[in-house]
Amino acid sequence: MTTTVAAPLSREEFIATLQAQSERYYHKHPFNVSMNTGQLNRRQIQLWTANRFYYQRIIPLKDAAILSNCPDPAIRRVWIQRIIDHDGTVAGQGGIEDWLKLAEAVGLSRAEVLDERYIVSGVRFAADAYVTFAKTQPWIEAVAASLTEWFAPDLMKERIEAFKRHYSWVNTDGLTYLNKRLTQAPNDAGYAIEIVIQHCHTREQQERAIKALVFKCEVLWSMLDTIHHAVKDVKEQKGIFDNARS
Amino acid sequence: MTTTVAAPLSREEFIATLQAQSERYYHKHPFNVSMNTGQLNRRQIQLWTANRFYYQRIIPLKDAAILSNCPDPAIRRVWIQRIIDHDGTVAGQGGIEDWLKLAEAVGLSRAEVLDERYIVSGVRFAADAYVTFAKTQPWIEAVAASLTEWFAPDLMKERIEAFKRHYSWVNTDGLTYLNKRLTQAPNDAGYAIEIVIQHCHTREQQERAIKALVFKCEVLWSMLDTIHHAVKDVKEQKGIFDNARS
Repeated sequence: MTTTVAAPLSREEFIATLQAQSERYYHKHPFNVSMNTGQLNRRQIQLWTANRFYYQRIIPLKDAAILSNCPDPAIRRVWIQRIIDHDGTVAGQGGIEDWLKLAEAVGLSRAEVLDERYIVSGVRFAADAYVTFAKTQPWIEAVAASLTEWFAPDLMKERIEAFKRHYSWVNTDGLTYLNKRLTQAPNDAGYAIEIVIQHCHTREQQERAIKALVFKCEVLWSMLDTIHHAVKDVKEQKGIFDNARS
Repeated sequence: MTTTVAAPLSREEFIATLQAQSERYYHKHPFNVSMNTGQLNRRQIQLWTANRFYYQRIIPLKDAAILSNCPDPAIRRVWIQRIIDHDGTVAGQGGIEDWLKLAEAVGLSRAEVLDERYIVSGVRFAADAYVTFAKTQPWIEAVAASLTEWFAPDLMKERIEAFKRHYSWVNTDGLTYLNKRLTQAPNDAGYAIEIVIQHCHTREQQERAIKALVFKCEVLWSMLDTIHHAVKDVKEQKGIFDNARS
């Protein structure tokens, strides 16, 4: 009896299959389309910003989980930069802080963002699932999950344009986070794709990497599902979730 | 019905109780005493060095696990330095590399250290238990576990003296790791004790911190138990573990 083992994808096939998952990326989500076509009111923009902060906040925990599972100091030396980018090296710097500046630019106070009063449970579930994935699954699969960064720059460009065009009440100084990601995301993704290719030799490993990327697309997608549902009827002047709960 | 809750220890009592755990530190272990009094032969020194490397190797994984559980960016910004100290910022630097230099100074090749051929299972079990503790227990308890660094400088000083006196065949350039820890360990422990005090308010939290430090002392102690057993009859010119297995 022989067992048929599927041949590994070539480098090009593997890259193409990973890249094809961009179809699942949240740039196509109805909520993102609404945002980028200027259909959200100020309160909805605020609530999206506050909820997305939960995700920003857990990213260094996810990256530290990857470090804690990665036995190669050479890879850790590169990957640790993501944590430094997000946390900064001194108070008031880094990606988390840049997102807080966006929150202030859309009219929220730091306090109401930091205390997470607006976070809807589905956002926690999805973001926490990503941290749990990084803690419990092979580190190279968590690296593969990060490859959504490959798809990010186009979305970031559209979002920056949308803010300038449709939400001109937002101070453009608040867009630092989005602007930085235009260069950080491709650099980070470029390194990640190389180590995914290096460490996923067999077809099974390649398929697990693809599955990890699909999982991550679903994390981001389901965050927008739950934010969309929570804010869809929120009016400019009403209290938070008045409509959603009535 | 009333429940009696033990009052928290004062800052001074808490510090004193943590410090009292130095009694359990491995400076009193018979194997350490043998080493520091010059009773080990070259092969035994080599095998201790190779086995201890396993512990050095997992330290950044343990520290990354603490980061991945710590929600405070201000603490992460400080704690991340431990990973950088150990991994270095470029190849050939950092604590892991310094331990490899010690291994070479005692006459081992990098290859035979890196492939872990001499590691005894009990060393893996103990060191891995420390990583698992940091992954699965509250981050502040894993920080408390690190407080063995408080006890380290005296042991490091003795060990450096012992190498110079009794094992003068070891090139002193190889002692970089031990020398660096003379200053790094007190700095690291000084920060760790402050955050343990800040985050352990209740008696129960304080007792869990003390228990974490006891656990860590036992990790280090049991590593020496198993190394001691494995190398105790190893002669200078014999192959690895010839005696232990005969």
